[in-house]
Amino acid sequence: MLATVIHAPRDIRVEEVPDPVLSTGADAIVRVVAACVCGSDLWPYRGVTPTDEPHRIGHEFVGIVEAVGADVREVARGDFVIAPFYVCDGTCANCQNGVSTSCLNGGWWGSEVHDVGFADGGQGERVRVPLADGTLAVVPGPVADAEIPGLLTLSDVMGTGHHAAISAGVSAGDSVAVVGDGAVGLCAIIAAKRLGATTIIAMSRHPERQALAERFGATHIVAERGKEGIDRVRELTGGIGADRVLECVGTKESMDQALRSARPGGMVGYVGVPNGGPELPVRQMFGRNVGVNGGVAPVRGYIAELLPDVRSGAIEPGLVFDLELPLAEAAEAYAAMDERRAIKVLLRP
Amino acid sequence: MLATVIHAPRDIRVEEVPDPVLSTGADAIVRVVAACVCGSDLWPYRGVTPTDEPHRIGHEFVGIVEAVGADVREVARGDFVIAPFYVCDGTCANCQNGVSTSCLNGGWWGSEVHDVGFADGGQGERVRVPLADGTLAVVPGPVADAEIPGLLTLSDVMGTGHHAAISAGVSAGDSVAVVGDGAVGLCAIIAAKRLGATTIIAMSRHPERQALAERFGATHIVAERGKEGIDRVRELTGGIGADRVLECVGTKESMDQALRSARPGGMVGYVGVPNGGPELPVRQMFGRNVGVNGGVAPVRGYIAELLPDVRSGAIEPGLVFDLELPLAEAAEAYAAMDERRAIKVLLRP
Repeated sequence: MLATVIHAPRDIRVEEVPDPVLSTGADAIVRVVAACVCGSDLWPYRGVTPTDEPHRIGHEFVGIVEAVGADVREVARGDFVIAPFYVCDGTCANCQNGVSTSCLNGGWWGSEVHDVGFADGGQGERVRVPLADGTLAVVPGPVADAEIPGLLTLSDVMGTGHHAAISAGVSAGDSVAVVGDGAVGLCAIIAAKRLGATTIIAMSRHPERQALAERFGATHIVAERGKEGIDRVRELTGGIGADRVLECVGTKESMDQALRSARPGGMVGYVGVPNGGPELPVRQMFGRNVGVNGGVAPVRGYIAELLPDVRSGAIEPGLVFDLELPLAEAAEAYAAMDERRAIKVLLRP
Repeated sequence: MLATVIHAPRDIRVEEVPDPVLSTGADAIVRVVAACVCGSDLWPYRGVTPTDEPHRIGHEFVGIVEAVGADVREVARGDFVIAPFYVCDGTCANCQNGVSTSCLNGGWWGSEVHDVGFADGGQGERVRVPLADGTLAVVPGPVADAEIPGLLTLSDVMGTGHHAAISAGVSAGDSVAVVGDGAVGLCAIIAAKRLGATTIIAMSRHPERQALAERFGATHIVAERGKEGIDRVRELTGGIGADRVLECVGTKESMDQALRSARPGGMVGYVGVPNGGPELPVRQMFGRNVGVNGGVAPVRGYIAELLPDVRSGAIEPGLVFDLELPLAEAAEAYAAMDERRAIKVLLRP
């Protein structure tokens, strides 16, 4: 079968790899219906994180279950499933606490997962899914083709934007500023509106993304950055800053923007992978009582809550996909995202 | 009148200073009944923060109102009042948001406060209180002498311990670890118990403080620090760490202890002044979804909630005062706290 393999920075190939086989009783084999490229896939693509040897890549996909191991109970052959961007058992203490990204038995696509072996990358024709009962979320009933993009966002970006909003404690009537106009930032706007925020400020300099932000619920667009951007946010929030700020980028500059855009007593919910590891300025946070909460988003646990709104069309996160390509053109998908020609690319095997 | 003046590191003097006078219509003059030394007063005492010139010091006191300006409405001559460790108007947007430490018109004892002039230090016979209606909390009815220590803790340490617990989101059934066995850490134990925590782990190596921690509600004592301390906390919390950790010290080491003692998805509430400005390790926080929330505690807003429990004896924060001295011996009070001979010293003018 075909799957995407990263060989080196900017060297993405779609290659023949062995077909997956059930290897534990808890496995499922999923035929991928759609996968996509994540902003975090661009770190190895750009060489920011090293690629020591060629390996399978991709961690967001939806598909049809083709086979299950003898111990699988919640997932059956023929089910349409959403795979979150990680593997989890759903039963350990951390999963029960809602932090399935810290599953004691789980792990990451494209790497070794504790006792259950190497988990395939997600950008391929088929994937062996370890811990299938915990990992996969079943979408009931027939799934229309038009639903695929929206469902695929529950694999990562919609759940991640929601996690930013939940971590920041967004609730009815809040003012919310969103730093970052990538797919996650745009989904964070959806999440903020869904949770009742009434002032939603999207920080974006790109006309297409500004338009999508407004469609998703942004009430104001701030194109300025740095001190000017912070001043604009304060102007829009009674002079003091936003109640909640959603940091959806992960750079030192974006976190600084977020911290300084929050009002005293406000909270920054952050989900951008802090690549390079910017440290947080604790004295600045302390003096203004600005908290920071979030992290790698436990999206598996959010699917049950978000799925009905995606299926009903109440929210439209699938619109973040502005380019669709066949799997064979994965290299072009990476290039389009790297060059910001596309917000997010959907791949069809 | 007499008041405490810091001249240089380890040079604390009680000296004659001018009597305070009403200078704005919003002022009150308070005769100090009791004041105390704060852990943060030890930073200039130890020379960690500079003392460029002699100045009044102290920011926690209770007393009797002797005079009020023409515009004061909430406070009257003869009232027994608690002064929080800062000045605030109670009406600005930040005060209304519960963050009175960020009052747009407020400031700090012993320094200039916006438009209302220099605010006296609190360790003296009398204090001019600017913005009296916002700053001072009236204790109704007659106040017994035995109540003084407990009431004085509402000026800072009890409210600050409570802020750590509130910022961490402590709620019924939680496991809570408290880092720091000073007066604030001990009050944080009271706060955690009061909010319904069922497992309360006090990290302390001092027998007297361990005993007080247990009296206040600690269910476990962990004397170990560093990795051993973290391992002990995990043993006591099902192997994963505490739901909430209250950081009540403010050093890099204590914050590290706190972050690593929290379970995935847990929250660190912090109130220790981050002296020296340790930065927070954001990648470690991100990977485990451990949030950090807190800051300089808006204790003025907590007095109404905590006062009834202090007066009824339901909580006994006044026990943190294990030494009482006349104001004239303020230098000895500082030395006793600096050398950890006393947890907290009460001064009587």
